[in-house]
This record gives sequence, C-alpha cells and structure tokens, in this order.
Amino acid sequence: MDFSAFVDRLATASGEAILPFFRTSVGVENKLREGFDPVTAADKAGETVMRTLIRDTFPEHGVIGEEHGDERKDAEFVWVLDPIDGTRSFILGMPIWGTLIGLTRGGNPCYGMMNQPYVGEKFHGDGSSATWRGRSGERRLRARACPRLEDAMLMSTSPTMFTAEERALFDAVSVDARLTRWGGDCYAYCMLAAGHVDLVIEADLKPFDIVALIPIVEGAGGVVTTWDGGPATDGGRIIASGDRRLHEAALKRLAAG
Amino acid sequence: MDFSAFVDRLATASGEAILPFFRTSVGVENKLREGFDPVTAADKAGETVMRTLIRDTFPEHGVIGEEHGDERKDAEFVWVLDPIDGTRSFILGMPIWGTLIGLTRGGNPCYGMMNQPYVGEKFHGDGSSATWRGRSGERRLRARACPRLEDAMLMSTSPTMFTAEERALFDAVSVDARLTRWGGDCYAYCMLAAGHVDLVIEADLKPFDIVALIPIVEGAGGVVTTWDGGPATDGGRIIASGDRRLHEAALKRLAAG
Repeated sequence: MDFSAFVDRLATASGEAILPFFRTSVGVENKLREGFDPVTAADKAGETVMRTLIRDTFPEHGVIGEEHGDERKDAEFVWVLDPIDGTRSFILGMPIWGTLIGLTRGGNPCYGMMNQPYVGEKFHGDGSSATWRGRSGERRLRARACPRLEDAMLMSTSPTMFTAEERALFDAVSVDARLTRWGGDCYAYCMLAAGHVDLVIEADLKPFDIVALIPIVEGAGGVVTTWDGGPATDGGRIIASGDRRLHEAALKRLAAG
Repeated sequence: MDFSAFVDRLATASGEAILPFFRTSVGVENKLREGFDPVTAADKAGETVMRTLIRDTFPEHGVIGEEHGDERKDAEFVWVLDPIDGTRSFILGMPIWGTLIGLTRGGNPCYGMMNQPYVGEKFHGDGSSATWRGRSGERRLRARACPRLEDAMLMSTSPTMFTAEERALFDAVSVDARLTRWGGDCYAYCMLAAGHVDLVIEADLKPFDIVALIPIVEGAGGVVTTWDGGPATDGGRIIASGDRRLHEAALKRLAAG
C-alpha cells in the first residue's frame, strides 16, 4: 500500500496551518499579558488538520500525537505525528524545525516524512529508500561511509536533554568526534540521511520525535537504535549512524558507562 | 548614495556561485583522499564573484574579505565580505549559514545584507531602517521590547568561541535568561532584528563576521556593541540586544568579571 500521495496531502495541509504562526511578532510583554503562545497554537492547528484528514480518509487507522493524545493506538496502521519538531527553533524564528509524519504497521515504522514548509523541502523514506524533494527537484538520499569516530560529524539537539550520567556518556563519544554541533532536532537525522552528518546522539525522545525519522534514516542506508542497540520506535535514548561500523564503535562507548 | 540595487546584484551573483557547493555529497574518505573542501571552494567562489563585480563597478572602493585579503582598506567606501558565515552549518547541510555583505563609509557601517540563497531570504538595513525580503514578499524588521534579562531569549554560535574567562561571563548572563540556544551565526542577529531573539553574545569575531549585521540590527531598533560598550565594527567580543534596557543590564553582568 502506497501512502506517499496521502502523506504529501498531510504535509501540505499541516504546512498551511502552521506557517501563519511562524515568525509572528509577539513581544514577550504581549505574550505574558495575553497568554498567547504561537508555537502551541501552531502545533495544535497542524495536528488538528492532519487528524481530520486521517479520520476522513482512513477512519480505521490509529493516531498518536503530541497535542491531542492517542486514538486507536492498537490499529494495524497508526500515524505518529509531531507538527513542530524543534519548538525552540520555531520560537526563535530559525527555519530548522520540521513537521514529522510517521506511519507504523503492526508497530513497525513503515513510512516517514520530515516536511519543512518554510524552506520548502521534504525528506521521506520507507525503510528501503529515501528521497529529498525541494524547490529545485528531487534526489535519492544516501548516508555516507564513515567507519571511524575520529572522522565523524556529530549532531544533537541540546545538552539539556541529557541527565548528568547520559551527558558523560555523550561526552565520551563527542570527545573523539571530528565536530560536534548542537541545535539539530529532526534536521540532524535528515542531514545524516543526506550524507552530511555521520552520527546523531540524543536522549529523552518521545515516539513522535523519532518514528517518522526511522524509515528515512534506514531508507538512506543508515542505522538508528536505542543506546543499547534495541529498536528506536519507543524513543528514549537514541543513536543514529550513517555507517554501521561507526554505529558499533559508538555503541561500545555508550555502553562503557 | 543608494547601494541597495548593487548589493542585490552581489547577493544574486554570490548565491549562484555558492549554491552548487551546498549539500554536495563528498564523503569523509573522498575528502581526505582528494583534499577537496566544498566550503572553502564555495567561500572562494562567492568572494571572487563579489570582488569582480565591485572592482568593475566601483574601482575606487576598498574590499575586506575572509578569503582574498584586503584591498584599498583606506578608501572612503570599503566592502566587508563574508561569503559563508556559518561554515559549520554549511558543512552539515543546515540551511542557516548566510552571505554577509557590509559597506563602511569613513570606517562606519552604512549598509548591510545577510543573504540566504537556499532558503530564499534576505535581511538588509542601513542603520535607520531594516527589511526582510523572502519568497512571500517583504516586511519591515523591528526588534522587540524586552527590558528584563529574565524574559530574554539568548543566542550564540558555539561554546568554543569563548575563552574560559569569557565563558564564565557569558554564563553569568545566560543563567538568568529565559532560554539559551547555540548554533546561531548570522541568523541570530537577523532574528534579533526580526523580534524573535532578544540577546546575542559572542566572542572572537572578525570584522567581516559583524560589519554587515550592524546596520541591520541598528536599523531594526536594536543595539550592538563590544562587551565594554564600544563600537562593534572591529569585531572581538560582541553583544547585540533588541532592547536598550536589556543591553545595559547585560553589559553590567559582562563587566562584573
């Protein structure tokens, strides 16, 4: 069953719902006085349009989302939605948040998309292939070879996502990486799929933070697991690598703690 | 004298020179073997086309750039160029680098532009007004009111830009800010001008990292100085604020060390 055309509709609809709230000038004083939070409003608007489309088109499917809770989560097909992954980037006006649309079948991620409607680019995959589409066309995504940690470009979102113990393990990997960069969110995984980033190490992820990204990373030839090598589907402590040899090397460091 | 149409030409030409190198898939192994560095190649290509246009149009003007050194830096008008501000973002495929085109007259910044050709947006200013232009039109940029550090959204580029002493001073401000985010580069200043970020604190900046951004920040009603309140034109330790009251409060903390 090919859901790609339907996922495009979800992406278009959620983009139209979210963009009016992006870079809305709401002063801190106004915000405190009026209690208006553009990112929450955008998140809700994006999730509502996607849930409505799913309910109208596939009433038997389940939905898991950040804003409106779970519906039929034991269905064969379950959509896993995060309208705005990267809320801090969104708040600061940085165009590196994304809308995550994932689909699981029997609990396994089978299709995923990251849509960035402001930049005008989409990353999607089904576990066996992955594709970028943008204003200039489309191209196949392929993670790059990088067997050694010493050559690896490492991304993560924020030091605050780690406990002290987790941070020490992260640092044990980071210390030998060629470059470490914060502020990744969903873009880190997409840039890994595109062959520009070699390693993403994060913690405290929810299922809707990662499910959509798994078929993209795996479709590009990358690997994504928990820190102990298990399935990434439930979130938690997550590591993604473009090269399986690098993944093994990094898992060893993370297990050393 | 209105240089805005000419700066648009510089932005278009440098964007066309740089974009073919962005998200070029060059594996780490290839890179090491062949010695090809896309960001250096892009930087040089972007600066070369801008220098050629300037030399052909305003042969009496000076140019200061990262890649090709200084020419006639004592001229009345001097262009200050950074083809790729945010080289780490560029390397990682993140669309938050920018081309900085600044112009000084008698040593004072009088016009500046940040151009992001992949996203398709420009931020420019002349010290008395500032404007955003993107795919959906254009709008006036205005920094927002935020008198108190406790409400401030703080951005910076990387902890590695600070010495230990500078980092301690940065932390003395950051500890009370509402949110601190790394990975800003030139976008941090533009988002301050657009009213989404309140404070940018950095160190170890070169003139070409900051000159183009000064007329944008000031044109939007913001303030940008060194940590001791002096002119920002020569780079070094830089602080920008959307609100003058916040600037004073943060300068006090930075002076306390």
